Amino acid sequence: MKIAIYGYGNLGRGVECALTQNPDMQAVGIFTRRKPEDIHPGTGIPVYAADEVGRFKDEIDVLILCGGSATDLPEMTPRLAADFNVVDSFDTHAVIPRHFAAVDSAAREGGHLALISAGWDPGLFSLARLYATAILPEGQGETFWGRGVSQGHSDAIRRIPGVLDARQYTVPIDEAVELARAGRSEGLCARQKHRRECYVVAEDGADRAEIERQIKEMPHYFADYDTTVTFIDRAEMQAHHAELPHGGCVIRCGQTGIGEGHRAQMELRLTLGSNPEFTANILLAYARAVARKHARGERGCVTVFDVAPADLLAASGEELRAHYL
Amino acid sequence: MKIAIYGYGNLGRGVECALTQNPDMQAVGIFTRRKPEDIHPGTGIPVYAADEVGRFKDEIDVLILCGGSATDLPEMTPRLAADFNVVDSFDTHAVIPRHFAAVDSAAREGGHLALISAGWDPGLFSLARLYATAILPEGQGETFWGRGVSQGHSDAIRRIPGVLDARQYTVPIDEAVELARAGRSEGLCARQKHRRECYVVAEDGADRAEIERQIKEMPHYFADYDTTVTFIDRAEMQAHHAELPHGGCVIRCGQTGIGEGHRAQMELRLTLGSNPEFTANILLAYARAVARKHARGERGCVTVFDVAPADLLAASGEELRAHYL
Repeated sequence: MKIAIYGYGNLGRGVECALTQNPDMQAVGIFTRRKPEDIHPGTGIPVYAADEVGRFKDEIDVLILCGGSATDLPEMTPRLAADFNVVDSFDTHAVIPRHFAAVDSAAREGGHLALISAGWDPGLFSLARLYATAILPEGQGETFWGRGVSQGHSDAIRRIPGVLDARQYTVPIDEAVELARAGRSEGLCARQKHRRECYVVAEDGADRAEIERQIKEMPHYFADYDTTVTFIDRAEMQAHHAELPHGGCVIRCGQTGIGEGHRAQMELRLTLGSNPEFTANILLAYARAVARKHARGERGCVTVFDVAPADLLAASGEELRAHYL
Repeated sequence: MKIAIYGYGNLGRGVECALTQNPDMQAVGIFTRRKPEDIHPGTGIPVYAADEVGRFKDEIDVLILCGGSATDLPEMTPRLAADFNVVDSFDTHAVIPRHFAAVDSAAREGGHLALISAGWDPGLFSLARLYATAILPEGQGETFWGRGVSQGHSDAIRRIPGVLDARQYTVPIDEAVELARAGRSEGLCARQKHRRECYVVAEDGADRAEIERQIKEMPHYFADYDTTVTFIDRAEMQAHHAELPHGGCVIRCGQTGIGEGHRAQMELRLTLGSNPEFTANILLAYARAVARKHARGERGCVTVFDVAPADLLAASGEELRAHYL
């Protein structure tokens, strides 16, 4: 299975690493919008300019799109799905239906298969919500994120004047997690479910009180949460906040039986040392499924919901039934 | 979607209850090997003799087989898959390949679709093992069961002379679970992962020491585990051990990145007030998938690995993407 990487940030580097864990996959190349000669991948994969990718139409089974959801993927995925089977990690939940429609149309016209929104949320957590709802139709579900670095929130802080660097941790509130496990989380507001911890490196002489006020009052990002702001120096940022850990859990608590019945609780929990590396591993498992589904004649756009689990592993049906069932 | 229940023990009663939670499903009837007139289902579903089921070929979309794995299902599932779409919860792991082959052949000949081994293990836990292995190919996984009642182990105790009733709880050992979460569980033996708690009602005058010896030395069931035996009376059995709770967890701990990389940990945890009721809910979710796949022309035998998650919920693809992704 011939795989190529389009975009070489944290996620692209994660895919590069993940390729070494999947012996049935061969790395064709990295395509970058930067100067290819400036990039020296640790694994020695060849690097090409992004606009050269068209030359590789017949040499790539699946192209992994490692752009950002805000501006890259809405343009990138439909454009490349016309010429390649692609997988992306588009994660702007509210816009997924629009993205799906654009990618589906482009992929169908080009005779390709695209899988969008792979990752852990959307992705694995979406699967956990779907399985749990199908199995416990009478119940209540919650998703908690963290403790982990939210790159979107960190970026939002960095845009405030006087801020040199920032890291934002999303932290689930223990009491809310316990309520969810007990099936009593209904009506909890955003502030009751998560809090936000911010670590900020400010310019010398910056008005720290003003920076803190701007963070805490920022609509959507922070205003609805209890937020703490801690000013640190660059050395401390490097020593204690250089990593991108994340994780969280999807909990569903429901009733089985009739009347009083019995309680059933399902919980998927992820604890990730590196968010982009783990996301990259998921993208590759779904790339395998995309190649197989395309070989069977499937075209257009799909999501993790449309992939039978058997397509994610290189093993045969017999091996899966013997060793995993 | 017209559903019927074949077999009316704990699992069949669970399916009867679960049908009330799924408004897109209609209960056609219960088929029993006992006298139909002796059975009065709480939901008022009609009851028929098992050998009448052939008359209902055109009135049942999916028949849920609620027999036991030891002797019922190996004969029942292939026989009924010739005439019906069926779902079973066959759970003798070692014999699944043989069961699959027999059911596949019968279902293909009859033009039907059968899904075997649905439930939580095999079933949901199998899915967790497969997803986790696909996403973390370099890693180590463990499955823990309990704390919960093992019906097979309880039955084994009941067969000992002098035993009137028994309940066996499988209990995961906390230290082993912690080692699994840390990725350091390799080489743990059965005794290090689970212990077994037995509650026994003995006949008056029975040799309790001998019963305890027979339990603790029973090969496969107890000899490889630290086992405790507690003698209780019927009243205590009824008061404290009348329910069938179960659960457990599937843990996989793996590496992402290259070299040192980062650790990633995935854990699915189930806590079930009623094992048969929860299993019944799973059977119905997969019955929905079986009806849809059969309508699309699929024939033969499949497992949970072959079912795309989207087929488990009544919602459309658009609704799933908008609300669950």
